[in-house]
Amino acid sequence: MARDPDIVFYHAPQSRSIIVQWMLEELGEPYRLHLLNLKKDEHKQPGYLAVNPMGKVPAIAHKGVVVTEAAAICCYLADAYPSAGLNVPVGDLRRGPYLKWLFFGPSCLEPAIIDRMFKRPDVTPGALGYGSYDATLDLVAKAVATGPYLLGPHFSAADVVIGSGLTWGMMIKALPERPEFTAYAARLRERQALQRVYAKDAELAAAQAA
Amino acid sequence: MARDPDIVFYHAPQSRSIIVQWMLEELGEPYRLHLLNLKKDEHKQPGYLAVNPMGKVPAIAHKGVVVTEAAAICCYLADAYPSAGLNVPVGDLRRGPYLKWLFFGPSCLEPAIIDRMFKRPDVTPGALGYGSYDATLDLVAKAVATGPYLLGPHFSAADVVIGSGLTWGMMIKALPERPEFTAYAARLRERQALQRVYAKDAELAAAQAA
Repeated sequence: MARDPDIVFYHAPQSRSIIVQWMLEELGEPYRLHLLNLKKDEHKQPGYLAVNPMGKVPAIAHKGVVVTEAAAICCYLADAYPSAGLNVPVGDLRRGPYLKWLFFGPSCLEPAIIDRMFKRPDVTPGALGYGSYDATLDLVAKAVATGPYLLGPHFSAADVVIGSGLTWGMMIKALPERPEFTAYAARLRERQALQRVYAKDAELAAAQAA
Repeated sequence: MARDPDIVFYHAPQSRSIIVQWMLEELGEPYRLHLLNLKKDEHKQPGYLAVNPMGKVPAIAHKGVVVTEAAAICCYLADAYPSAGLNVPVGDLRRGPYLKWLFFGPSCLEPAIIDRMFKRPDVTPGALGYGSYDATLDLVAKAVATGPYLLGPHFSAADVVIGSGLTWGMMIKALPERPEFTAYAARLRERQALQRVYAKDAELAAAQAA
């Protein structure tokens, strides 16, 4: 009998948890999918709140221990399964820039996108964690200009996080289609793992809508 | 002749970079301080923009490689100097919750504080990365209720990040003085490293104001 996978993935189709779905496809480790239907508010029910009291997807349980926050999960999994080559190991000096990008996703790129999406008013310069929308975009554009990936030839979990943000931001028109962004997104779309994710997620969304 | 320290710390007194100042005091490694005067806009000058093109403090250079984003720096340093015991090593299952808190600081707690501070209008439920202000606070309150630290008896870089956020949030009245928060903040203030940070930072601020 096959043993239960070490990873349980709490996922809702067409949500922020697609970031971790992509990470898992790149990782290639078996996982058990625990689906949640956001339209039925399943993420706000006691069963899931016991997993993540924030009532947000994604979450994973790894050997029974819950991890939340998409970028934290990506960082965790990349280190936990180093043979997949998705991390920069501790001790390697490139670890600093690698971590920078992992944190930059949810604390700079994503809030910059959200503020633009909802046309939220500006605040005192320097007060926002991400600084300014333009500086945030300029930094990412420069980082992906050469490529193929954020760390050059090495595709890493940082690309999963930043690539997800860029793709989503352009889709909802909160990010401009700068040539650096579209070229990078096109390179990412060539990855079979991401193609599988898009196909699977559309299938899951259709099944939930049925 | 003493060799140049491996760590250079780019710091502005009474700014967000106090998070890394605290981390360095806990770490106990020698570092070279590179001071910036925000009132003179030194963080927006070419010299510093070459270090961090975002023009934000903090930044560090470790053996010549620049790392930015305060929580990323804390995560990086804790792993780079494991003998200080400020990390949870890769391979330990508590690594997941540890990373969750490191990411939670800049991507949930800090934006929740900023939104409250500036009375920013709400957006579609679920759209903000942090979810809701109340859920964010409830999660932190529950996590620090027992203590003494986020990971129980083990003080870690996660406490530097979350503790800094809580302390700052209560100071600017964007967070309520919930008993769990004030008791945790009081435990943190007992740490000699944090007492040194407050003393040093006041001294640096006074010198810049002179």
